[in-house]
Amino acid sequence: MEIQDLGEFGLIKRISDAVTIQNDSTVKGIGDDCAVIAPTKGRQTVVTTDLLLEGIHFDLTYCPLKHLGYKSVAVNLSDVYAMNATPKQITVSLGISNKLSLKAIDDLYNGMLLACERYGVDLVGGDTSTSLTGLTISITAIGEANPEDIAYRNGAKENDIICVSGDLGAAYMGLQLLEREKRVLKGNQYEQPQFDGYDYILERQLKPEPRADVVKFLAEIGVKPTSMMDISDGLSSELLHICEESDCGCLVYEEKIPIDHVTRNMCEELSINPSVAALNGGEDYELLFTISTKDYEKFQSKPGPNIYAIGYITPKDKGRRLITSGAHQEIDIQAQGWKAFQK
Amino acid sequence: MEIQDLGEFGLIKRISDAVTIQNDSTVKGIGDDCAVIAPTKGRQTVVTTDLLLEGIHFDLTYCPLKHLGYKSVAVNLSDVYAMNATPKQITVSLGISNKLSLKAIDDLYNGMLLACERYGVDLVGGDTSTSLTGLTISITAIGEANPEDIAYRNGAKENDIICVSGDLGAAYMGLQLLEREKRVLKGNQYEQPQFDGYDYILERQLKPEPRADVVKFLAEIGVKPTSMMDISDGLSSELLHICEESDCGCLVYEEKIPIDHVTRNMCEELSINPSVAALNGGEDYELLFTISTKDYEKFQSKPGPNIYAIGYITPKDKGRRLITSGAHQEIDIQAQGWKAFQK
Repeated sequence: MEIQDLGEFGLIKRISDAVTIQNDSTVKGIGDDCAVIAPTKGRQTVVTTDLLLEGIHFDLTYCPLKHLGYKSVAVNLSDVYAMNATPKQITVSLGISNKLSLKAIDDLYNGMLLACERYGVDLVGGDTSTSLTGLTISITAIGEANPEDIAYRNGAKENDIICVSGDLGAAYMGLQLLEREKRVLKGNQYEQPQFDGYDYILERQLKPEPRADVVKFLAEIGVKPTSMMDISDGLSSELLHICEESDCGCLVYEEKIPIDHVTRNMCEELSINPSVAALNGGEDYELLFTISTKDYEKFQSKPGPNIYAIGYITPKDKGRRLITSGAHQEIDIQAQGWKAFQK
Repeated sequence: MEIQDLGEFGLIKRISDAVTIQNDSTVKGIGDDCAVIAPTKGRQTVVTTDLLLEGIHFDLTYCPLKHLGYKSVAVNLSDVYAMNATPKQITVSLGISNKLSLKAIDDLYNGMLLACERYGVDLVGGDTSTSLTGLTISITAIGEANPEDIAYRNGAKENDIICVSGDLGAAYMGLQLLEREKRVLKGNQYEQPQFDGYDYILERQLKPEPRADVVKFLAEIGVKPTSMMDISDGLSSELLHICEESDCGCLVYEEKIPIDHVTRNMCEELSINPSVAALNGGEDYELLFTISTKDYEKFQSKPGPNIYAIGYITPKDKGRRLITSGAHQEIDIQAQGWKAFQK
């Protein structure tokens, strides 16, 4: 059985049959002109969308389709959590090149539905089409939050503490490893890729997890970040966004930036500065946020996810600065993250 | 100035600067991890999404980018109106091939924003990326309605009258004309395309209008359709959807199907049966709906948009049937609309 045998409506039915609705707010899922959602009284709706294109955002030579499905949902949910909100629904549009089998499409959707299940999200609609070129994935995520809880990028205030969750640079180093093995294996079918000991960074690249746990923990300890965003383009780029939107400066300590030892090992092997991977690598999908100093001790009140203070907000005229680890020099933070329209 | 000079953030700022927010419900538009929407108390949210791919859904050799932008928004709004709802926000994701100039992208967005302005919709977010292949457009539209007003596909009842707005087959014949002129002109740079007298069908193909006026009129005369959907794949296909979802049959009169005289002229020129264009052509973006017989006279209560009764709903065991014009034969309705995964 192939996609052409099923046809568009057969494919939609196949997807629809695989979906389990988890949220009461989902009034109508797949199968009409629109999905219908009943917003929770008094809450606001948040909406985000991401486009993933073959050859730009993913490489099917080393990206398993189930992981790709999972990741494409995860990166959208990450944006919802970055508003301090809870995701509830997604729509999925696919442009499918004819080189993909029905099995491949099943794998892709299975990955998406696994992420949906894990994060309590309903797949409520979408669009499917053939594509003359590569695989195209467009996902829109919808979530909700109490209006007073929503964390924008523009609320950071002088002296606020700058925090990041998890560790940074791992996804980027996972990508470097995959690219290296792809080059090594090109034209050499008897070699096996050398991934031993690097599972962690591969997983960070291929199957990132949005930080639902951080948002939950913040609510539990009663802390609303003064600003928040997720780290998709690299820490430097995101710090500059928060400073720009909040009209402030920042001072960040290189030595405080959390980097996993596996990431460091890979950096050493490939002669890459770990801080460069963390500052400019991107795709970490960790949360960057600022908190008021008065909230700092609340983080000690109960055990929670790994969150690190890496610096603080300064007046705008102090610039956006990094104190380097060794020489303790103060340098300008520059965005060198992933550029979508690089020359 | 080209897209590469602007960069992704420059392009986003350029788009953002061109947007005017029209709805109070739009709390936050472009510029954060998510857009934020304040749902109107007591109303439900509807969501739809459409993916448009170069070479599949549009051909840039004859589709002006401003029209393409307008159409890509219009087809999404059409799905919202098809729920008897009012569109309020859209997100727009673009995959941009490097053959497109900044001027081309401006034209595309100008077309989108023109549709937004005309239909009172806010562009609140999206994603932009380079594309290795063709232009990719993914739009999600969000609207709202009172829960009791939402018209699904599954509410048609026996004896309900089947109605369509406007006229059918025009968009398909517009496409046939464009394709003919493209073939004629191929390799013949001194010829001019012959479009005289065919403005109507070209406009129906290149710049369709979603039927906001029909939804408004239905509300004014106090009629809620028992079922409704928009005609994107062709009347046959949509009739079968409504019958399938509503678990019923239908009887439609070929002679009642509204077809414009310009469409008929083009059909004659190209030796295409006008009913085939209307039944299977697609892309009309007219509304197909059913109403209770008791509501029929309300349509006479005031002047309104062109709406035609084309048949009625029958019990399921009577099948989905068409009475032909000439011989008055009864034949099965078959979906031969646009197939996304045709072999």
